[in-house]
Amino acid sequence: MTVIPESHRDLFDLPAVWHVATIGPSGEPQVSPVWAGFDGTHIRFPHLEGRQKWRNLRDDDRIALSATDPDSNERYLEVRGRVVAFEHEGALDLLDAQSQKYRGDDFPREDAQPLDKRISVVVEPLHCTTMG
Amino acid sequence: MTVIPESHRDLFDLPAVWHVATIGPSGEPQVSPVWAGFDGTHIRFPHLEGRQKWRNLRDDDRIALSATDPDSNERYLEVRGRVVAFEHEGALDLLDAQSQKYRGDDFPREDAQPLDKRISVVVEPLHCTTMG
Repeated sequence: MTVIPESHRDLFDLPAVWHVATIGPSGEPQVSPVWAGFDGTHIRFPHLEGRQKWRNLRDDDRIALSATDPDSNERYLEVRGRVVAFEHEGALDLLDAQSQKYRGDDFPREDAQPLDKRISVVVEPLHCTTMG
Repeated sequence: MTVIPESHRDLFDLPAVWHVATIGPSGEPQVSPVWAGFDGTHIRFPHLEGRQKWRNLRDDDRIALSATDPDSNERYLEVRGRVVAFEHEGALDLLDAQSQKYRGDDFPREDAQPLDKRISVVVEPLHCTTMG
């Protein structure tokens, strides 16, 4: 059973940008937009090993994500949780699936470099807040 | 001179939702959407004294905000900074100005209760990241 309410699960099927908050090296908050999907248990977003969010989450696995409905910006979901894995396997499949959702096309391989650093960040949702 | 690049200042004039990251009571990241404006020096967003973000920011003034262009979700601005004030004066004016921007109308007074808790959170931008 996921903590994500059924009423707001559709946000993962829409091209809603997710804003990911992590803890930076000095304990400060950082936030940046990502593409994300939800399989009924975990949230996954495409990322690159070595990047800032990866470094932050390797050091502190606590994470929060929020998104608004692209057609109704007062309808939103915030999820707090923990990163439970950085997956290499399937990372390009996730990237393509999300690119299809947000752009309507696969992700160009030349823009996905370096391919061996491509990962999926896997988030276990623990707590949610909704509006609208 | 502000650190916010001219190329992305228009995001504050668009109805772009800002996702505000703060540090929660256990040091965890939290993120939620707000309306925000920029006067050339400070970012201000309407809030209520006593709410979670207010409590977080009273205890740790470090903050980050990110937004994407509503018409181009790969164009974004992230701002990191510090909260330099919680202003009571002008809080309803800010709320109305932002409501005009996002909803096209003033904010209903019955929804703005309690009026004496209405504040503007004032952010000094210190560092920016942009894309697109």
